[in-house]
Amino acid sequence: MNDTFNWKIVEKAELNQGFELQEALKNIKYNADGLVPAIAQQHDTGEILMMAWMNLDSINETLRTNRVCYWSRSRQAYWRKGESSGQEQHLKELRLDCDADTVLLLVDQTGPACHTGRRSCFYSVVDGDQLKVDKEPLIDPAELYKK
Amino acid sequence: MNDTFNWKIVEKAELNQGFELQEALKNIKYNADGLVPAIAQQHDTGEILMMAWMNLDSINETLRTNRVCYWSRSRQAYWRKGESSGQEQHLKELRLDCDADTVLLLVDQTGPACHTGRRSCFYSVVDGDQLKVDKEPLIDPAELYKK
Repeated sequence: MNDTFNWKIVEKAELNQGFELQEALKNIKYNADGLVPAIAQQHDTGEILMMAWMNLDSINETLRTNRVCYWSRSRQAYWRKGESSGQEQHLKELRLDCDADTVLLLVDQTGPACHTGRRSCFYSVVDGDQLKVDKEPLIDPAELYKK
Repeated sequence: MNDTFNWKIVEKAELNQGFELQEALKNIKYNADGLVPAIAQQHDTGEILMMAWMNLDSINETLRTNRVCYWSRSRQAYWRKGESSGQEQHLKELRLDCDADTVLLLVDQTGPACHTGRRSCFYSVVDGDQLKVDKEPLIDPAELYKK
């Protein structure tokens, strides 16, 4: 964090008070790999679709294009959601939390967000002494990635 | 991950198929500090309240007590939500994502989830070239922690 930006001042802001966006984005508390977790939520239904990671460049690309771009930790590459599956995420709103270490993306998701073909990645739920799968794929994942 | 648990099998499970919970929880992909990010969502409105971190013990305590317990990275201690503010999180549902590296908590939050007195921690939003604060505190944070 540099001297010109202090998240404690944002905490105490008046309603609708604004701060210079690029200063704020530079001062997100990225982890040692320069990444911040990003939650994707369907803007109209409130459903949590997935959680992935972004860096400063992928946040700026997302804001510029209105199509969500993550950083893939497994592939160590930019991950433009829908690039290989066709299931795009269009950005409606980008939010930060109070301590600037999480991004919330309100999106419009085409079809499934999950690589398994399910709408959401959160398809398993604790049920007594079991973890149960309670959502079915919308699409066979083999279909999703056949392009 | 041990040999007895494979998340790829969970991916391909039939609807309502169950897996031994403690085996699943042990095989969550905790980071190097033994932590996993946990998203808290108000169960009935869908509002995202906050994101924090849990370890295996705090997940099990949460399931046992139905009151959400995180691990505080800043204090390096268990953080039973509401312990100092009185603003408790009661667990309705605990979900895992497809690659078992994020927890989703469906909760019933008493009052504000955020230490600033706001309902949600995600009170700042990108608006053109500004980051704007668009939510007001429900309660003065000085009131919240005066006990």
